[in-house]
Amino acid sequence: MKVTWLGQAGLYLQLGGLKIIIDPYLSDSVGAIDPAKARRVPIKESLFEIEPDVLAFTHDHLDHYDPESAQRFLGQDKGFLVLAPNGCWQKARALGGKHNYVLFDTDTEWTHGDVKFTALPAVHSDPYAIGLLIEGEGKAVYITGDTLYSKKLLKNLPDAVDVIFLPINGAGNNMNMTDAARLVTASKAKIAVPIHVGMMDEIDPNEFPCQNKRVLTVYKETEIE
Amino acid sequence: MKVTWLGQAGLYLQLGGLKIIIDPYLSDSVGAIDPAKARRVPIKESLFEIEPDVLAFTHDHLDHYDPESAQRFLGQDKGFLVLAPNGCWQKARALGGKHNYVLFDTDTEWTHGDVKFTALPAVHSDPYAIGLLIEGEGKAVYITGDTLYSKKLLKNLPDAVDVIFLPINGAGNNMNMTDAARLVTASKAKIAVPIHVGMMDEIDPNEFPCQNKRVLTVYKETEIE
Amino acid sequence: MKVTWLGQAGLYLQLGGLKIIIDPYLSDSVGAIDPAKARRVPIKESLFEIEPDVLAFTHDHLDHYDPESAQRFLGQDKGFLVLAPNGCWQKARALGGKHNYVLFDTDTEWTHGDVKFTALPAVHSDPYAIGLLIEGEGKAVYITGDTLYSKKLLKNLPDAVDVIFLPINGAGNNMNMTDAARLVTASKAKIAVPIHVGMMDEIDPNEFPCQNKRVLTVYKETEIE
Repeated sequence: MKVTWLGQAGLYLQLGGLKIIIDPYLSDSVGAIDPAKARRVPIKESLFEIEPDVLAFTHDHLDHYDPESAQRFLGQDKGFLVLAPNGCWQKARALGGKHNYVLFDTDTEWTHGDVKFTALPAVHSDPYAIGLLIEGEGKAVYITGDTLYSKKLLKNLPDAVDVIFLPINGAGNNMNMTDAARLVTASKAKIAVPIHVGMMDEIDPNEFPCQNKRVLTVYKETEIE
Repeated sequence: MKVTWLGQAGLYLQLGGLKIIIDPYLSDSVGAIDPAKARRVPIKESLFEIEPDVLAFTHDHLDHYDPESAQRFLGQDKGFLVLAPNGCWQKARALGGKHNYVLFDTDTEWTHGDVKFTALPAVHSDPYAIGLLIEGEGKAVYITGDTLYSKKLLKNLPDAVDVIFLPINGAGNNMNMTDAARLVTASKAKIAVPIHVGMMDEIDPNEFPCQNKRVLTVYKETEIE
Repeated sequence: MKVTWLGQAGLYLQLGGLKIIIDPYLSDSVGAIDPAKARRVPIKESLFEIEPDVLAFTHDHLDHYDPESAQRFLGQDKGFLVLAPNGCWQKARALGGKHNYVLFDTDTEWTHGDVKFTALPAVHSDPYAIGLLIEGEGKAVYITGDTLYSKKLLKNLPDAVDVIFLPINGAGNNMNMTDAARLVTASKAKIAVPIHVGMMDEIDPNEFPCQNKRVLTVYKETEIE
């Protein structure tokens, strides 16, 4: 699996032959409202040239469903699969195009080619927020989405999670580093990728107290075996 | 049980001495709005002569609760049982007549003669959408209604489902063929009847990758043991 | 652990190096509406000088989330952690400041320093009401919040509860003394502290029929080993 961190909670995965983009935040939507949260990482324009097979949103907050980034990708001529829960599903769908807008609420599953997507629960201030389980190439990839720690998160996970992507910023109803480390252990994930830092704060992911963490560099494609 | 596929998700069942019509789409309501979805199968007028014992609607989308078809059946003099969830229940009920309009939301049950009807959950863009479990003649017939794959669907099914009717079109928040085939397996249905194809698209139900499928011909009465 | 009962269900705990305030009711908000429930214990103004590390609310009733007391604590310059379930979370958050407002619904967990907080279920007329499990210094402290007796309360408790704080007033959807005593036994708590009496009624906590009860004096700091 190839992974490119797009900054904040944005991810670009190449898995099972699919190009999968999740929660792209390639604008300064949040900074425009709250200058303290101005974008600290320059926008890489060439990312908008990716033609995804799947575009997924985990919830309807500006740094996850970013209207500007959504419009850029959904404005592409070629149709693709869009997965989004209530709230951002309605917003994305209103942008039209040839895309297949699938309402992706907790527990829903969708198989695309050889890759299976499952909407998992998340505990966040958007009550429709989801996590994503992506299974392909014999790997189980768990993207928690924005969430606090809850036993609910663990209920529907497979026995072995290969990679977990999770917030560690401890603000805005996200886990802090301590609880995020507990979730890594509880999920039995082999590799933990801390995200949701460095875009609107000065939190250093290298401080995440987790043995099996893998800290990514924004915009740099990385192979995760 | 005798089954007649009315095209799209429409079904006419003769079971346990009852004439049961579900989601009749005998108009071009959708094509009138979106020419790309114009009706591809001619309307068979004689179907309106059926005097049903039960008319059931699974949700309030034009190809399921079709106002024109609803009006034709509900305009009959003889009263019958109408099962419909929130949304289309209100619309159907407004048409009046001698009918018994039962609000049929998820988990609700109604026994008519020797046949028991249960409203099952469905995961669709109409939040009130239901599936139907119809039990009679010692058979359990599961009509999923429009839905995506979710563990929720399986929760209240009987141990053995004899026949499952399910969408396979993979658009508009319906399962694609892969997930539909998974649902057949998970529900342990003996016979799977793919529907919701051929009326507004060119999808061929013979391509449904499912060993125990039974492909019906529109308007042709078929005995299913 | 040092405990100061603030009257009604208000508690000030010093545990694991943290100052924790729960449900402070330091006003006469209820008496202003219902004179029969006028405050019977004078307000101790100096309590507002405490700079808490954690301020927790169990539900959105005036004697638990008291707008006046909330405003006084949340008006402090220094930011701290606020734990609150739906309803009072929205109200507290609207007061702003540098605080970290964590939405704390049932099953959610948050670790702060060496202390772990878990939102437990409560069965009360505010459907978002929670109980709190606070684990630190090798102790498990269970604050039931306002609740009736239910098996749900016991589901996620640790094997051994060291101290349980619980209502015994038997009114307004709270346990009476009999059911409260049953809960102490069922939770296997070593020490039981009856609260939610004496502020708006004349109930005497010494009448609580429970061998291992510890009756506190309002505003008096007590060491509980």
